[in-house]
Amino acid sequence: MTAEIICVGTELLLGDIVNTNAQFLSRELAELGISVLHQHVIGDNPGRLRDLVKEAKSRSDLLVFSGGLGPTEDDLTKETVAEAFGDTLHFDEAEWQKIVDFFARTGRGGRTPTANNRKQAMVPTKGHKLPNAHGTAPGAWFEDDGCIAVLMPGVPREMKAMWAEDIRPVLLQRQNCTIHSKTLRVLGGESSIASKVSPLFASENPTAAIYCKTGESEIRVTARAATEAEAETACDARIAEFRKILGPNAYDVDVPGLEYTVVHLLQQKGLHAATAESCTGGLVAEKITNVPGSSEVFGYGFVTYAEAAKAKLLGVDPTLIEQYNVVSGPVAVAMAYGALRASGADLAVGITGIAGPGGALPGKPVGTVYLAGADARSGKAWLMRLELGGYAERSIIRTRAALYALDLLRRMALDIPPENAHPVPSKDVKPETLDI
Amino acid sequence: MTAEIICVGTELLLGDIVNTNAQFLSRELAELGISVLHQHVIGDNPGRLRDLVKEAKSRSDLLVFSGGLGPTEDDLTKETVAEAFGDTLHFDEAEWQKIVDFFARTGRGGRTPTANNRKQAMVPTKGHKLPNAHGTAPGAWFEDDGCIAVLMPGVPREMKAMWAEDIRPVLLQRQNCTIHSKTLRVLGGESSIASKVSPLFASENPTAAIYCKTGESEIRVTARAATEAEAETACDARIAEFRKILGPNAYDVDVPGLEYTVVHLLQQKGLHAATAESCTGGLVAEKITNVPGSSEVFGYGFVTYAEAAKAKLLGVDPTLIEQYNVVSGPVAVAMAYGALRASGADLAVGITGIAGPGGALPGKPVGTVYLAGADARSGKAWLMRLELGGYAERSIIRTRAALYALDLLRRMALDIPPENAHPVPSKDVKPETLDI
Repeated sequence: MTAEIICVGTELLLGDIVNTNAQFLSRELAELGISVLHQHVIGDNPGRLRDLVKEAKSRSDLLVFSGGLGPTEDDLTKETVAEAFGDTLHFDEAEWQKIVDFFARTGRGGRTPTANNRKQAMVPTKGHKLPNAHGTAPGAWFEDDGCIAVLMPGVPREMKAMWAEDIRPVLLQRQNCTIHSKTLRVLGGESSIASKVSPLFASENPTAAIYCKTGESEIRVTARAATEAEAETACDARIAEFRKILGPNAYDVDVPGLEYTVVHLLQQKGLHAATAESCTGGLVAEKITNVPGSSEVFGYGFVTYAEAAKAKLLGVDPTLIEQYNVVSGPVAVAMAYGALRASGADLAVGITGIAGPGGALPGKPVGTVYLAGADARSGKAWLMRLELGGYAERSIIRTRAALYALDLLRRMALDIPPENAHPVPSKDVKPETLDI
Repeated sequence: MTAEIICVGTELLLGDIVNTNAQFLSRELAELGISVLHQHVIGDNPGRLRDLVKEAKSRSDLLVFSGGLGPTEDDLTKETVAEAFGDTLHFDEAEWQKIVDFFARTGRGGRTPTANNRKQAMVPTKGHKLPNAHGTAPGAWFEDDGCIAVLMPGVPREMKAMWAEDIRPVLLQRQNCTIHSKTLRVLGGESSIASKVSPLFASENPTAAIYCKTGESEIRVTARAATEAEAETACDARIAEFRKILGPNAYDVDVPGLEYTVVHLLQQKGLHAATAESCTGGLVAEKITNVPGSSEVFGYGFVTYAEAAKAKLLGVDPTLIEQYNVVSGPVAVAMAYGALRASGADLAVGITGIAGPGGALPGKPVGTVYLAGADARSGKAWLMRLELGGYAERSIIRTRAALYALDLLRRMALDIPPENAHPVPSKDVKPETLDI
């Protein structure tokens, strides 16, 4: 089966957004064993769209559209594709009611939908509509002469849900095989990971692909088999091989991010965590609290951006700051212990560093971050000095620092010693030994 | 002038990478006043490439290529385009020498270039080569029958440098004008904004386009004129018209986000702000502290996720929580005043709400957020109840709530009454009047 991806939207042609939909759909289609021959981006021009659809239909088995389902007069994708596929559109009362309800529920300035919105309630007659669980515009499925066209909204969240729920399963059935994918998340850069596990990437079934994120990578393993259970077993076996080689840096499977792993671990172990943040300015707390259910394990976050705030909220001794500078190991450790004391939590992290672009100190360039973790259960702590600069900008330095802080919470919860960390044997340790 | 962007690369068709080149080139072309009608992604298939080039050449004035200039036998983009443009390729000794030098200099495993690399030293005969300052593959410029084709490498750094140094200046000269763009940022949804200012979008010079973000929109104004100064003046005049109609919701020009406006305003006015966050979990503090220089205006952020934390850090009376619930107007106001007291700041916001997916209360669905702002200068406060739910997920509700909180700080700093807010005349006001 061959496919073409057609994204409709002036904002793409003007370069105002990057086309993440095309990447998502290409990856999904590749996993289904469907070859993508073309990706297109086109505006709301019915003539050009008509030409493209005609051409694509003549050479490919599947046309996957995103965008162009909006309520304005310019949005003619559904009409154009219906015509090319010998279908018509009719008004769907149930979809219209969903739109009316949406306007009523969300307020939208007390407005009721306009006549233009009625366009969105038009659905295929020979083909069928695709429900939109996250927005007002339903999608559409057309089929003619051995060619399928699926139309989805351009909003990524709406498109992804429609793809997963109503399109992918049907295509999978037609492909007559079962596929299972799992994603292993690994802390560290792509090149250092790839060099350790490169033989595993050569396999044809399961396949594995690595994707680089800020401070971490995703390894996506995909297996094909006759049954779902066999495919899943093959995935699990390959993931186990990756984990064996990569060790504790491979932190979880099929989670949106490290903060989910941390919250789940704390829940399992009945632990509470607290954060004391300077250079990350609340980013660690924000990530943790974005996980549903995090209130069970997180109650207190201290954003002590000012020196006085470190003293007042965390009890950091001002003479410590004076002697070692606010960006230093002793201050990070004092912040972590202060967060434990002020919150009554079991685990806490303290973060102080230089996120840039200004603020570099002698021997401490932009990107220098001190990260401490304190564990009330053992009375012990860990300290690490991170160098996160290089060419990285402020937000990247902060994101990387937050990732290390979350990993430190994870490792303390699991009693796995953090890599490259100095153990701080007791809270009575002399500060000068922390001057790293 | 009309253009098409053609990106060549299997890694794009497989979804291994996202196509940032297409976005970059689209934006650059839009600024030059060149209309991009199509973006294409295609693999290294000479037949399909030949068809596409022929078609694109027949309908557009400019074809902009990235990728396909590699040394392997599959990379036939240059050969294919040369043929379609009635040109031939010849071996260029100087480019070959550059490749030999590059291999020697970078080591590359001690290798010398192979015969395949000679392909990269082939350059147009009627057209001309484009030097590559950052890599081995030179680009190419072909021209035939009123149509231009420019071929650039796929590596973004190499492509961008070639574009900026050898392609953009020539196109700008041919367009015979100067261009200036400015972006106005406006709080509120695209549809409510567009309906107010739609006549201004019809203008052809300056043009205006609106782009929807979470909770806000960007209006990009682009003017063409004979000189840079004239173009900028025309931009400024049009932006002033937008601001007159949109009022204080149009908050700033050419800033990355509202937090930048807030930090700059606080700096100008010599004010300090503090945050007391529950449902946003540190997001407001994180946004503020991501702005370089924010330490001048922000020292204390309280993430009081637990009820006990609200009492301990902010002095919120537990009986208030018991009587009105933790998600309530009285608690939001008490949090804002508590943040003022505990930090000594001039302005503070308090935020408590239900980010979901669970936690809905009778009369308080997911997305209900109470936002209070307290002003130490006047001793007065503002309170608003927001409904941010609908189809929105947790992170969207939090992002919208944070945007409202930043706007409240901005409006308090400017002494512009917030829209839809209840004034809280004094901190001694009876809590029941805040039970909205």
